[in-house]
Amino acid sequence: MSWIDDPAFAPDEPFGPQTLPYGVLPGHGVAVRVGDHALPLRGLSLGERLAPLVAGESLDALLAAGRPAWSELRARLVEVVSATSAPRGADLVGLAGAVLPFTVADYVDFYSSRHHAENVGRIFRPDGEPLLPNWTHLPVGYHGRAGTVVVSGTPVVRPHGQRRSSAGPVFGPSGRLDIEAEVGFVCGGPVASRLTPSQAADHVFGVVLVNDWSARDVQAWEYQPLGPFLGKSFATSVSAWITPLEAFAVARVAPPPLGNDLLPYLVEERTWGLDIAIEVEWNGTVVSRPPFREMSWTFAQQLAHLSANGATVRPGDLIASGTVSGPNRDERGSFLELSWGGKEPVRLADGAERTFLEDGDEVRITATAPGEGGSVVGLAEVVGRIAPADGRQDVGQT
Amino acid sequence: MSWIDDPAFAPDEPFGPQTLPYGVLPGHGVAVRVGDHALPLRGLSLGERLAPLVAGESLDALLAAGRPAWSELRARLVEVVSATSAPRGADLVGLAGAVLPFTVADYVDFYSSRHHAENVGRIFRPDGEPLLPNWTHLPVGYHGRAGTVVVSGTPVVRPHGQRRSSAGPVFGPSGRLDIEAEVGFVCGGPVASRLTPSQAADHVFGVVLVNDWSARDVQAWEYQPLGPFLGKSFATSVSAWITPLEAFAVARVAPPPLGNDLLPYLVEERTWGLDIAIEVEWNGTVVSRPPFREMSWTFAQQLAHLSANGATVRPGDLIASGTVSGPNRDERGSFLELSWGGKEPVRLADGAERTFLEDGDEVRITATAPGEGGSVVGLAEVVGRIAPADGRQDVGQT
Repeated sequence: MSWIDDPAFAPDEPFGPQTLPYGVLPGHGVAVRVGDHALPLRGLSLGERLAPLVAGESLDALLAAGRPAWSELRARLVEVVSATSAPRGADLVGLAGAVLPFTVADYVDFYSSRHHAENVGRIFRPDGEPLLPNWTHLPVGYHGRAGTVVVSGTPVVRPHGQRRSSAGPVFGPSGRLDIEAEVGFVCGGPVASRLTPSQAADHVFGVVLVNDWSARDVQAWEYQPLGPFLGKSFATSVSAWITPLEAFAVARVAPPPLGNDLLPYLVEERTWGLDIAIEVEWNGTVVSRPPFREMSWTFAQQLAHLSANGATVRPGDLIASGTVSGPNRDERGSFLELSWGGKEPVRLADGAERTFLEDGDEVRITATAPGEGGSVVGLAEVVGRIAPADGRQDVGQT
Repeated sequence: MSWIDDPAFAPDEPFGPQTLPYGVLPGHGVAVRVGDHALPLRGLSLGERLAPLVAGESLDALLAAGRPAWSELRARLVEVVSATSAPRGADLVGLAGAVLPFTVADYVDFYSSRHHAENVGRIFRPDGEPLLPNWTHLPVGYHGRAGTVVVSGTPVVRPHGQRRSSAGPVFGPSGRLDIEAEVGFVCGGPVASRLTPSQAADHVFGVVLVNDWSARDVQAWEYQPLGPFLGKSFATSVSAWITPLEAFAVARVAPPPLGNDLLPYLVEERTWGLDIAIEVEWNGTVVSRPPFREMSWTFAQQLAHLSANGATVRPGDLIASGTVSGPNRDERGSFLELSWGGKEPVRLADGAERTFLEDGDEVRITATAPGEGGSVVGLAEVVGRIAPADGRQDVGQT
């Protein structure tokens, strides 16, 4: 019996000792989540090597420390939460108020779900091949805006932007505001480049959920030829708690085959596909259950590709998977796909119909993966509510 | 007569007291460049408000401080370097060893030269319209990799990458390594969003030259549909010394007209086009003189656009103009354009012919602008030499 009198130790509790995700609570500093509570690490006796890594108001020092320190700290914390009496300095607090727990260095968003890429291709280029020729040979991706990554719970103000109209471009609030349900990988360890897929895991500290909010009307007008920019850069929400990569040891699965041989620098010795089951709730109604195991490219391949040209990977880099969509309609990770370009509304439990997001709508993304000994590993929710656009007027082409 | 016995005070010296760019020298900290010397600021009596802003080993604190502090410090430094005797603590040192002087937050690269966009369109899409329809309505741009921005002088290792071949994709060193001569704007001041073009200048600390190295073969295969990624992310070189925006007060010119009305959020009250004359040297031969005054979109419009959706601009953001190309052949800012896709070699002074960069080649970009009273304002050089690719083998599709 642990000193933590908490349902956290029930076998189906996703934030039990098998998970122990890290976050930051202002005033308490670095903490691990245990069930519905947080254990600040500052007061614990962690020794002179580990204590400084969690003494600050962010996870940055811990991210930089690398795999040996991550493993040692995690083993120590499992002991602490599993002890029969509370260790000196152990004091549970609430989860509320958790902030973005690390400094985002570069943010890269991939596009690694074949179902998503094919759906988008069919919606936007109905007469062409749904998948472009490079897609099965390399993990397609692009850089996003690191400065607008926000923590779960941050309201998302409907963005203004420039979009196409029959009378020429107009400027005003987006009318096609969407989500993208993704899984994100938070990098750490020594600055490195030219990683092999086998080396990549030692440069990933942990896993978060990501909602890559997208203004589809803005994106459609701007994205040629250099890719998405303002259609995405207004906000990207991530979980407040980072689940360590080590918690996913038994969740590894082989991704679906790509249908062609891979260049050697992308071949994994042992694959990092992950069996993560995602749920997307729209105003409380589960509208989709995207299966991460359907992703064609793993984070290990993404990191090998992204660093193959000599680009460095550094602590705080955030690698997002791209929208997670499965083969079935109720497994699609964006509302663009769920509503098939706005043509097939989604019905919510209260009878309301939706194509894209309306002001006041709330989207909540949760996920779990299989853990050791039949346990369940949780990824912390990423939630966001749409706030109305600020008061600027719609302006048409003069 | 200044205490600085230096040709820096000659009227045509680009780094005289009218310029005073900021940089960082390890061991000396923050310094201003005066001619071919640097004046470390740490030893000067700058007062308790200004001194802490330049006490560290980077410009980050100064960038965050904002326009009033920037103006006050600049005025004080003009007094210091113009004084007839050396103020207490003033001690000139050499320029060598200057490091990247600030922490790059987000790096955004625009595409604001009509000549460049049209040239690239003609080379890559000979049968289509050279300019895409959005180009004259908004400053097209995308996010680049902040973590691989390097200081002038850093060797550039020829990147590996995946590229198209008749037998399928292959992986190996780029065979079409190119430059992009650009002007970059380093942001500072309070975190802000929804900037008007008039407000934008208060969020720009200063100006650098940028060489956005580009692997054209890698880029051509990867860039659809999400834009450039590994073709650019291996290295972006910037000047070691940042020329304050205030030095460009008399360099303002109207950009060429776009040919259509602009949406109001992009209309400048007084334009921030800048008359900067650039020179590109390839192994010592001046091969191009790109005119920045030909750029169609200003940094003020770029910042207004980039923040129009609510995205924040923060200290350390780097905004690059995009390749600067003029209407004439010897004004093109990339070798892709100068050699017209590799078909028209460029002859150097030593008789050598070039299309793209060879190992050992050195590219040096310099620039000047008109200053107060007939003086010349300098932008610090950005120089880089190509180092051979690392020893990995070329690998074809299996």
